[in-house]
Amino acid sequence: MPDDFEQMWRDLAPVGRSASSGGYNRSPWDSAEVELRDWFVEACAVRGLTVETDGVGNQVAWWEGADPQAPGVLTGSHLDSVLEGGAYDGPLGVLSALAALDVLRARGVEPARPIGIGVFVEEEGSRFGRACLGSRLATGATTWDAARELRDRDGVFLPDAIDSAGLDPARGLMDLGRVGTFVELHVEQGRDLVDRGVAVGLASEIWPHGRWRFDFAGQANHAGTTRMEDRRDPMLTYAMTVLAANKQARLATQRATFGRIAVEPNGTNAVPSLVTAWLDARASSDDALATLVGEIERQAADRAGRDGTTLAVTAESVSGSVAFDADLAARLAGVGDWPVIATQAGHDAGILSGAGIPTAMVFVRNPTGVSHSPEEHAETADCLAGVEALADVLAELTADPA
Amino acid sequence: MPDDFEQMWRDLAPVGRSASSGGYNRSPWDSAEVELRDWFVEACAVRGLTVETDGVGNQVAWWEGADPQAPGVLTGSHLDSVLEGGAYDGPLGVLSALAALDVLRARGVEPARPIGIGVFVEEEGSRFGRACLGSRLATGATTWDAARELRDRDGVFLPDAIDSAGLDPARGLMDLGRVGTFVELHVEQGRDLVDRGVAVGLASEIWPHGRWRFDFAGQANHAGTTRMEDRRDPMLTYAMTVLAANKQARLATQRATFGRIAVEPNGTNAVPSLVTAWLDARASSDDALATLVGEIERQAADRAGRDGTTLAVTAESVSGSVAFDADLAARLAGVGDWPVIATQAGHDAGILSGAGIPTAMVFVRNPTGVSHSPEEHAETADCLAGVEALADVLAELTADPA
Repeated sequence: MPDDFEQMWRDLAPVGRSASSGGYNRSPWDSAEVELRDWFVEACAVRGLTVETDGVGNQVAWWEGADPQAPGVLTGSHLDSVLEGGAYDGPLGVLSALAALDVLRARGVEPARPIGIGVFVEEEGSRFGRACLGSRLATGATTWDAARELRDRDGVFLPDAIDSAGLDPARGLMDLGRVGTFVELHVEQGRDLVDRGVAVGLASEIWPHGRWRFDFAGQANHAGTTRMEDRRDPMLTYAMTVLAANKQARLATQRATFGRIAVEPNGTNAVPSLVTAWLDARASSDDALATLVGEIERQAADRAGRDGTTLAVTAESVSGSVAFDADLAARLAGVGDWPVIATQAGHDAGILSGAGIPTAMVFVRNPTGVSHSPEEHAETADCLAGVEALADVLAELTADPA
Repeated sequence: MPDDFEQMWRDLAPVGRSASSGGYNRSPWDSAEVELRDWFVEACAVRGLTVETDGVGNQVAWWEGADPQAPGVLTGSHLDSVLEGGAYDGPLGVLSALAALDVLRARGVEPARPIGIGVFVEEEGSRFGRACLGSRLATGATTWDAARELRDRDGVFLPDAIDSAGLDPARGLMDLGRVGTFVELHVEQGRDLVDRGVAVGLASEIWPHGRWRFDFAGQANHAGTTRMEDRRDPMLTYAMTVLAANKQARLATQRATFGRIAVEPNGTNAVPSLVTAWLDARASSDDALATLVGEIERQAADRAGRDGTTLAVTAESVSGSVAFDADLAARLAGVGDWPVIATQAGHDAGILSGAGIPTAMVFVRNPTGVSHSPEEHAETADCLAGVEALADVLAELTADPA
């Protein structure tokens, strides 16, 4: 008898967790994340399922059902985390998929078509800067020729990171040809379900979002002897841009964040020569996002002119608006009494939807809305409600033959 | 015959230099800085002088003169650099000391008292955050018991860094008992000499200055899903503080700089939980400095209240005003026609002066005023004028017996 949801959760809790901060560092292709994916292989084996791991680390295990040739229903999520992240973002979807399969079997359900449980690699983009890298590669949204040039913060090339995890991209990528429908369960990363007083909801859309690198260049100089009026200090331009981004996002009820920065030479007694910072921006439409980023860039460039610095902006990844499949949503609306809400977070579900696969998402209530943080949380009762909801969804979607 | 100034300069030019940026990284107790200090031992040996290296890496070589028991005149500077620094800050004073000794010998001068050439370690504080650490230890301004707890950015403790360079603090510290007078030659780090149209000047005083660590703490959260009004984002508090510091310093004709920052978790799609930044502040009087820093701290704390963040400020090192010895300055005023200027930069000369040793500084013109930067520069003719000036000063100060 496989471990139940709560036991699986306890088993994974220590993996990649910082004892001091309580935060998770499950960086793709590093030891904690490799351990999690090995655990996934075991968890599937206990359930009589065989995991296929592709050349970059995406994984899928199929319960074949009555007709292995019929279009399958894939569910699952990811196991990597952001730096100092929480326990739920990703793993909740994978564990719930396994637990939902157990629920179906306990109910005596024999699916008419295959159910797959999948794990996508480097969903967060925390190491190589490209969110949903595994699903982007599997769908062809990103090519291997482009991805192979990516480097992490330590200068390690993506192929070397993958090789260090015992994988070989030459072995090919996950075959999505069997996937007729994708359903991803995920902890909610806002408070819509809290406000509505329910444990489970469905996703309507993902806001368009992206990452832009801002390089502010000035002139290194002595912090003590250089008169303030003689400086070309890019930290000033950066600081004003942070405040401008926040103000623009607030005014438009959108999102703009500078959470990552690298400074050269980063010495206490030197005016910096270069400040590189990454803008994460999200808005309710593609046009609104372009306007938001354009306005932040315009204000930054104006200030650079006054500071004697220069600005270069590079779009590192931009994901357009995703509206999840309307027919699928209508069908699921009959399964449970679930509200339908938008999310500002990117997900592998967005990538698969973009590749033309009918896709849905199930959200589980997060009492504080906090995410990408050690404080990210969901109550066990809500997690178990999520498992039941996912089982109901899978039963509905696999009840009929093709 | 020892190498002349220009040959010595060419020999040292490649050591610790980044081929890509042109900047110098001569971090104390690391390979480039160890190579420089080995070079110094050789350069002294060629001149018949024996270098004494103390337990932490301070070095001195004495030319005994007619009366080895008489109070000596020490000259020299340091060989370490800031991160991505220039070639002149420090090494110019050491090479000029060696070249000035050659000038005195070429002139047939036989000093009545000892002349020492010294090198102090970790002057910039670029590795362990305490400027003038070598001279502070030698004078007792900093105790070994306090210093041994210091750690660099990689977590290496000071004793381990010193040990890795083959040194042993148990061997004791430089004996300053022989030093009756200290003269440090240094590249100017501003443009006073340019404005005055002269190659060489003397220092009147060092502005009080210090380093304060600002820890801005907030709440890590998802950069996409967290509403702007639900955030506690310490990057906003930091950004406003950068602009406030700049404004206060401009208004008061003082200096305030945020050049170094560390962010946690420093991920593109996470609101930071912690922004740590270092304020470098300098002012023309101790009171003015306290007022400047107090005002920056007050504005930062106000903003923290509005951002829902918290602020903790820690003074990491504060150096009071240094007025160089008036009698010594009056005596040197008769040696050359040199202007007397203030500096906002800290120097080992300030530490020795604070320990009661009559001290003077000789500055060499810097055509752009740029310092702590790969663009730091002095024309060769000006450097040679500095060598002659230093030789004149040493001749004057060692002409008479005690």
